[in-house]
Amino acid sequence: MSKEKRTEISELGEFGLIEKLSEKIALYHAGTIKGMGDDAAVLSITDGKYSLLSTDMLLEGVHFDLSYMPLQHLGYKAVAVNISDIAAMNGIPKQVTVNLGLSNRFSVEAVEMIYEGIRAAAKDYKVDVVGGDTTASASGLVISVSILGEAGADEIVYRNTANENDILCVTGDLGAAYAGLQILEREKQEFLVNPEMQPQLEKYEYVVGRQLRPKARMDIIYELKTLKLRPSAMIDISDGLASDLFHICKMSNLGASIYEDKLPIAKEAFETAAEFSIDPNSCALNGGEDYELLFTVSQEDFEKIKNHEDINPIGYMHKPEKGKVLVTRTQQVIELKAQGWIHF
Amino acid sequence: MSKEKRTEISELGEFGLIEKLSEKIALYHAGTIKGMGDDAAVLSITDGKYSLLSTDMLLEGVHFDLSYMPLQHLGYKAVAVNISDIAAMNGIPKQVTVNLGLSNRFSVEAVEMIYEGIRAAAKDYKVDVVGGDTTASASGLVISVSILGEAGADEIVYRNTANENDILCVTGDLGAAYAGLQILEREKQEFLVNPEMQPQLEKYEYVVGRQLRPKARMDIIYELKTLKLRPSAMIDISDGLASDLFHICKMSNLGASIYEDKLPIAKEAFETAAEFSIDPNSCALNGGEDYELLFTVSQEDFEKIKNHEDINPIGYMHKPEKGKVLVTRTQQVIELKAQGWIHF
Repeated sequence: MSKEKRTEISELGEFGLIEKLSEKIALYHAGTIKGMGDDAAVLSITDGKYSLLSTDMLLEGVHFDLSYMPLQHLGYKAVAVNISDIAAMNGIPKQVTVNLGLSNRFSVEAVEMIYEGIRAAAKDYKVDVVGGDTTASASGLVISVSILGEAGADEIVYRNTANENDILCVTGDLGAAYAGLQILEREKQEFLVNPEMQPQLEKYEYVVGRQLRPKARMDIIYELKTLKLRPSAMIDISDGLASDLFHICKMSNLGASIYEDKLPIAKEAFETAAEFSIDPNSCALNGGEDYELLFTVSQEDFEKIKNHEDINPIGYMHKPEKGKVLVTRTQQVIELKAQGWIHF
Repeated sequence: MSKEKRTEISELGEFGLIEKLSEKIALYHAGTIKGMGDDAAVLSITDGKYSLLSTDMLLEGVHFDLSYMPLQHLGYKAVAVNISDIAAMNGIPKQVTVNLGLSNRFSVEAVEMIYEGIRAAAKDYKVDVVGGDTTASASGLVISVSILGEAGADEIVYRNTANENDILCVTGDLGAAYAGLQILEREKQEFLVNPEMQPQLEKYEYVVGRQLRPKARMDIIYELKTLKLRPSAMIDISDGLASDLFHICKMSNLGASIYEDKLPIAKEAFETAAEFSIDPNSCALNGGEDYELLFTVSQEDFEKIKNHEDINPIGYMHKPEKGKVLVTRTQQVIELKAQGWIHF
């Protein structure tokens, strides 16, 4: 290979790479309603009923650092982030498989701790752990989860179906997971300098918890079903609000305006950001890993949720010509950049 | 953790560990017909129709060595071994997802080679690649594939349903993949000593091909359907004949006798084994990675396939008290040991 052309993955980025790879994929089954390109694949199983299939892999040294990530939380998180993908399709999670790659520094007891977290998530979200591979790894810990969910044809919500003038809503609050990561990284550095040090995390419990124990917002999905409200488009916020909003805009061929004063940022995230002299808006826009839901609803439907304390309207969808912008408190209009997670 | 009890995974082994972990798994959905413990999970989707879900992960330095595994072959193999799990349930593969973990030594061109192999397998077995994660890896290459298949309730074949006096059959030939691995390892060592050396693989094309490009035996599954023959139990041979036969015996609560002179070993595997002074029977029994099918059929059903040139009767099932044994050419009865792959 050394003599041939070499393009770094970072030149394309994760999304560019996936786009390039998926272009050449041929589909052979009529039952494959939607392949790559949304939070989950949609597969027809019988008239009006669909399976949702998704998968996510967490790698040590890239997605987590075991010096501050307890193994139980890691197991929980690996399942929860997959549940979140099914939630983002407005589906109900059913079964998961778990592949574990373990180096010889992991004992049976360590694996049991990971599984404790997996079982806790399975219980919380009512999913069945139905299989998986447990194998040796030459270096770090690898955990790859796949998930099957279900939804009626009239329930599934894609990314590409937002409409002009729809209200953009986000659940919960944003940026805290990223703020928590800063705390954990700082404590790690301090611990490396002084191993006698006891980490002081009480004050940061909320933001650290958001990083270590993300929840999938199935509660909102069930509530929306009760309200008979189907969002027009939806995605979960794993890469950061800006990046995930870009997906909805690109696939729906629309632009969007969001308002700085509407961004839901918890007091704790705000304070932690201040401590690190980083912009709390930037945590919310580009931090990622909040696993909240970003969705669009028609203005009529919005009436049903306008008083919901955990659903925040943050802007609206409009013609693509108006761009993807943040309107600041001082009415400045700033073009959004989808920074997202740069793994490569 | 350092002060607590530490049990090495090698003390339990892969199967012991999986058994321990799966014991505590609760199931919440009536639709989960079969969770852990077979080649794939079985999930009820509608009356009489079932989904099959399975997953397999390949890790660099454990399952493959890129110094002799071409990237295209790796992509192909990662899909084929998953197809093989669906075949082992007597199902039809439908969709796969592919998670890739890539360190920065991999270029876009390298990823495209992996996907070339994935697409080739998808085409050969008519499966749709419907999703997956592509992410950075701190060290080696990780490829985790999940697969969905389908089967009617009256078609699925489990491991635990073999009957006394059933004939044990194996497709194709065994041991060649392991023999091929010996060749590849030898060539690698010679290359490390003398990098000018050109590998001499022509003579070993068959055995090396069996290691690098395993096929899933969907052809046999389609043939059995045409013959209206449903095996009474089935498994694919990934860990070696002995180990996989043990699964059928244990789960069906039976013993088995297999005959040395019936073991299907290709001439090339025999010759390669001789070259390395290893017992060709041992390659067949414990080599693994052949991805052939091991199944049991009733004596009446066996009539339908007794002249099939690619299906070999190798023994029969009997009461557990008679053990799991190999009958040698000289009529010695030797107890089988399930060595399988020791990853840990």
